[in-house]
Order: sequence, then structure tokens, then C-alpha cells
Amino acid sequence: MSLIVQKYGGTSVGTIERIQAVAEKVQAFRNRGDSVVVVVSAMSGETNRLIGLAREIEAEPSAREMDVLVSTGEQVTIALLTIALHKLGCDARSYTGGQVRILTDDAHSKARIQEIDAHRMQQDLSAGRVVVVAGFQGVDDNGNITTLGRGGSDTTAVALAAALKADECQIYTDVDGVYTTDPRVVANARRLDRITFEEMLEMASQGSKVLQIRSVEFAGKYKVPLRVLSSFEDGPGTLITLEDDDDMEKPVVSGIAFNRDEAKLTIRGIPDVPGIASKVLGAVGRANIEVDVIVQNVAHDNTASLTFTVHRNELVKARDILERIAAELGATQVDTNASIAKLALVGVGMRSHAGVAAKMFEALAQENINIQMISTSEIKITVVIDEKYLELAVRALHSAFELEESDREE
Amino acid sequence: MSLIVQKYGGTSVGTIERIQAVAEKVQAFRNRGDSVVVVVSAMSGETNRLIGLAREIEAEPSAREMDVLVSTGEQVTIALLTIALHKLGCDARSYTGGQVRILTDDAHSKARIQEIDAHRMQQDLSAGRVVVVAGFQGVDDNGNITTLGRGGSDTTAVALAAALKADECQIYTDVDGVYTTDPRVVANARRLDRITFEEMLEMASQGSKVLQIRSVEFAGKYKVPLRVLSSFEDGPGTLITLEDDDDMEKPVVSGIAFNRDEAKLTIRGIPDVPGIASKVLGAVGRANIEVDVIVQNVAHDNTASLTFTVHRNELVKARDILERIAAELGATQVDTNASIAKLALVGVGMRSHAGVAAKMFEALAQENINIQMISTSEIKITVVIDEKYLELAVRALHSAFELEESDREE
Repeated sequence: MSLIVQKYGGTSVGTIERIQAVAEKVQAFRNRGDSVVVVVSAMSGETNRLIGLAREIEAEPSAREMDVLVSTGEQVTIALLTIALHKLGCDARSYTGGQVRILTDDAHSKARIQEIDAHRMQQDLSAGRVVVVAGFQGVDDNGNITTLGRGGSDTTAVALAAALKADECQIYTDVDGVYTTDPRVVANARRLDRITFEEMLEMASQGSKVLQIRSVEFAGKYKVPLRVLSSFEDGPGTLITLEDDDDMEKPVVSGIAFNRDEAKLTIRGIPDVPGIASKVLGAVGRANIEVDVIVQNVAHDNTASLTFTVHRNELVKARDILERIAAELGATQVDTNASIAKLALVGVGMRSHAGVAAKMFEALAQENINIQMISTSEIKITVVIDEKYLELAVRALHSAFELEESDREE
Repeated sequence: MSLIVQKYGGTSVGTIERIQAVAEKVQAFRNRGDSVVVVVSAMSGETNRLIGLAREIEAEPSAREMDVLVSTGEQVTIALLTIALHKLGCDARSYTGGQVRILTDDAHSKARIQEIDAHRMQQDLSAGRVVVVAGFQGVDDNGNITTLGRGGSDTTAVALAAALKADECQIYTDVDGVYTTDPRVVANARRLDRITFEEMLEMASQGSKVLQIRSVEFAGKYKVPLRVLSSFEDGPGTLITLEDDDDMEKPVVSGIAFNRDEAKLTIRGIPDVPGIASKVLGAVGRANIEVDVIVQNVAHDNTASLTFTVHRNELVKARDILERIAAELGATQVDTNASIAKLALVGVGMRSHAGVAAKMFEALAQENINIQMISTSEIKITVVIDEKYLELAVRALHSAFELEESDREE
């Protein structure tokens, strides 16, 4: 007799047959005695189809009108899923974001949830109904339709779970859980039974795109147990929870995240005086370019060099700014490099274990992989390396920290 | 400087190019200094596509969920048209039925408008914005999405025009006005410059499917001048207004309406006592079958026979009821005939002119067309004839009452 919020993404509801399969899954939970709230995305392809229609008219359509347009995608799915539930004899009712109501700010296309009225959903749940809610959307104070941005359906699910004090929020997707690293790179990557919110955040922000990062933050903040499972196969998935201090078996390293989305910029020969870093990075920030890893050091001639990474799409824009700044500061050189990859070891166990960094660097050195940048936090060690060594590095570390699937070890 | 409500149907917004053409039309009115509210339908084919998706799951889906589903059709159009208006530099904002807000009763799929909040639209109009509203939909007292049923966008337009006290409500469609009769049957049928609400109602209910009948009733009730025009060609269309008593030129007959949708049932040999007609028609009515033309007469043996027409789709159902009733009443016979057509002369001028019926019957007699049933009202004479003579009858009457296009007469 639990209250469960389930979220099914676009692939899971991509066809009428899949919608019917979701209805059967939901019905199974109902038969077990659980109360269920279901959050759904638009059928896969639908959001892009709608965006395509608008783009035929105008390359940069109004964000308010785009929200009116694309929010119809989820509205279609809630109606179809509810009809499929009725067909199975399961009482159910659908709600758009505005109907729930999910109140957001007015930042169209990237709105943030401010408040959820759980009253109407609770009435339906008490009456034994399944509640089907359109993900990704809400309504602002003036009744304008808003959307939470791509992947926002995860956030909707977590927010509803928090508002309803649900026992678990289940995110159904096309993978069966969170892995120690990308199984396409390391064949014997292992599905994790559990992972902490903090670890998941670090994994997600590094490109393990199983869950939308904001939804994990949200779940951590409101302590909503989050589970990632497959829509297509049965299985326990991965449970994302608060850190369990009693868990003596916790491994030092939980997983390895990586991405190839970034590029590196270096400005050399700048005077080594206070305020230089803020001058450089301030200019980049004002251009709305997000900066990721940052490293500064001082050369023997008492000039400094500053290196940082940005998203590859922003490289040209960032270089132009840097060259202007270089002229102002009398810097000697600006270098850029788009052939880099970022890789991180993640694990709450690191906090209490020394030597993780040393072991990591040693494993990379054994493979003759040069480390270009290093950045550390309490539960993560990030390195930037040459892109061409990425797979090699991930496999070496996966093996060095014994993250393999145990039954394949022997 | 008029306030105009315009409605564009599914064909008029059926492609991105047509939506852009509508935006240009609206912009032309804005440039002339008019304030414009635009009501749009779903892109043609879209409503059927959505219904098709639901029917893949369930033959008779819940009416509430169908309203959630199909209302997305118009929501897509309002966003696209608003984006197209922006592209032309025209300030505009879109609203769903629920956002306006168009309050209806809770009769899903055939809801009736109860109240319209004109406040928000008036604010936008004052700010110089075009207001784009989704037709066909509203919201009930509990915030559930409702639809007005097929063709309901016309009703939305008229209701908005009434609420805003608009100077004119323009219905853009794929014909360029209301004709004396169907031009596919009579090649020289003439477009009417004006027609009264009453005449239009009689024409519409007889199958001249230019306007949805409820929208004409609504327009008549709230005295909203209604104009039917073509989306694709320029032209004055047909203005539907209150009767103009000063108009000496008013023709006796304005037009000829007809349809082939009905079937005829006769029950014979029933006792000629009071209450028989109500007994028969009451049973039919309780089965939710709408009865149209009714004729009763008494035979020389003091039994009566009762003949009436129903929609052809209801013929079998009505016959079953009639046979049951016949047994109860001791009637001798039940006949049915699906090969009939109904035809009506319509015109407010009839009120003050005797002899219209006689002239009509004479014209039909000259063509040897037998009249099976006759029914008259103040501004209409309806006859039921054998279906195979329909075109012949319409042409004969069109000519007898001189309804032809004058420049083709000579």
C-alpha cells in the first residue's frame, strides 16, 4: 500500500502499443494495492515535429507561443494513456500541468516549479483513481502555459512525489539503471543497486544522461527516493537515496563519468597580480558562457597562465572574448583545444579514503596518458585528457577500481 | 476602426503556407486600423488523426479524455498563427478556450458556452495586439477541458463577438458565401449578398452546411452581424443580419435547401384516438432519435396513419421501436423508405406573399414529381419526394422562382 509516482519518457510512450504496455504496468501496481500517479512525456518525435512546424514559419519563434505549441505533445499522451487505463477497467483521470495546478515562474521554455496544488490529485487517489499528469509543463501566475525545458518531465515527477509525500518516484526509461560507466565503452560495466543523490548529481553533470540533473537536485532537496528502471524489462533498477552511513560495504568509487562536449582555452603571460582571474572569467560569464574546470598557475617569469573549459559550441565565442581581454591585459598568447575529453571518478566513499587520486593518476600513467588538467571535489576527481585516449582511460580506471560486473570477473 | 472577430476553419489553416496567408489577411485588417480577434480550428485532418489514435485503443473512449485529446488540435494552430503574425511584425497573443476563459457546462464533446470573460482580450486589444483564440473548446466550472462538438469554432467566434460587442463576425470558409442553392446541383445558383438569421437557420438545418446552426442561432439571439466569406478569394461574401423591413426589393424566396440524409417511416391502421401520436413519437424520442417532418392523416376506415422522417443512420433502430409499438397498438403495418429526399423553399418574403406553395407544387407537378409529404412554417415550405427526382426538383424550383444569377439569364 504505497503511494508511487511513475514517470514514462517519450520512448516508453512512443506508440499506441507502448502506451498500452504502460497502462498494463500501472495496472499491475494498482492490483498490488498501490496508489499511482503517472507522469508522461510527449510521444517520441512529437515535440520535434511541433518545433519543426514552428521553424517553418520563424527561426526564433516567441518562447510563450512555443510553450503553447509543444505542451500539446504531453496533453495528447495523458489522454491516450488514460483511455488505455479505462480499457483495462482501471479508473483514471488526466490533468495538464495547468490543471493540476503546477505553478511555475514565467521563464518560458525553462520555467521553474514554484508550487504544486496536491488537493485535486489527493481527491482522485482517495477515490481509487490513477492520476495521469502531463510532464514538462506548468502555468504561471497569469495562467500562461509554461514548459520546464527538455527533460523536464523527470522534474515534474519528482516535484509531484515531493508534494504528495510519495513513497517512491520511479523514472522509467530505456536503460535499466545507472551503471558504473557507459556500457558502450566498458562492456562489463555494472548496474548499481544504489547510488547517493550527490553521486548521481556528479554522474549526471558529467554526461551520464539517465536523469535530468534538476530532477536529482530536487529529489535530494526534498528527500524523495528516486528509482531508475527500464520500461521494457522487469528489474529493480537503481535506487537513488540519501547516503546510508551504516553501509560498511560502500565502495570508494561508485562510477566513472565522462564527456567529449568541452573545449579548453588557455591565456598565457598575464601579469600575476590579484583580480586577473576574475577579470578574465567575468568577461566570459557576462557573455553567458558557462565555464567548467578552471586551473591557474604561475610561470617562473612571474607571469600567470589561466586554463578553463567551456562547451564546445561556445569555443569560438569564448576565444573572441579572450583575445580582446588578452590585448587589454598585455597577455602573450591565447591557445584553444577542442580535442579534449573530461573524465571523473565519483564516489561518496572517497571522503574517508586517502590515496584515490594517487591510484587514479598511477593507472593513467601506466597507460602513458598525459593529464592536462585536474580538479577535485569531496566526492569527485576530474581530469582533462586528450580526447583520443578517452576510452582507454575509462577502461583502465574501471578495472583499477574493480568496478566490473562480479560474475564476469572470475 | 472596427472590432472584428474572424474565424478560419480547418481547411483555411490546413498547411503552414495557409496559416501564413491567414496571418497576412489579419495583418491587412490591422493595417486598416481595425482591432482583430481571430478564432481558429485545428489544421484539417488533425482532429481525425487524434480521434484515430484514441480509437486504436478503445472504440468508445471517455468523452472527458477525448476533449483533452482533440482540444490539442486548435492549441497547435493558435500558436502557429501567432508565430506567423509575429513574423509579420504584428503583435499578437494566443489563448486556449480555458485561458480566455470560455466557461461551458460539463457536457463533454457537446458543451454549451455559459459565460465568456472578455477582460483579458480587451486588455490585449487596447494594447494593440491581435488576440488569437482556440475555437471549439472551453472549460467547465471544475477546470475540465470541454469541447463544443464538431463545427463549434463558428459558435466560439460568434460568442466572442457577442461578449466583445464586435462590429462584425466574419466566418472564413472554402466557399465564398451563401448560395440560393447548392451550385453543384444548379450551375447558375447565385451568391446572396444578404440573408436573414431566420432564413440562414432554415437553410443550414436543411443541409446547406456553410455555417454551424448553433452559431447562427447564437448570432441571431445576440444580434451579431455575421458574414460568410472565402479564405482563398477576395469578395464581400454573404452578410447574415436581422430582417430589414424597409427592403422592398426582398425576394419572396431566398433559397432552396435540400438533403438526402433522412428516411421515412409509416405506421398504418392505428386507432384514431387522442394520444396515439404522442405514444408513437414519445417512444422514438425516448430512444434519443430525432424526428424531423411529421404527417398524420385519417383513412376512411377511421384508422389513422402516421408518417415521419428520421436520420438514415437511425432507420433500423426506429423501425424496431415502431414494430414493438405497432404490436401494442394493434396497428396493421409498418413501412419504411430510405430512398427519399427532403427539399425546402426558404424566404422571409413568403410571410406576406400568398401562393408560394401553390406555385411550388405546380412546378413540381409539371415535372411529374410526386410529393410524399408536405410541411410548412412561416418562412419555409418543405416537401419530401423520391430521392431520384431531387436534382430535377431543385432545378425546376430554382428556375420557377427566378433565383438564377442575373448575368447568366439573358
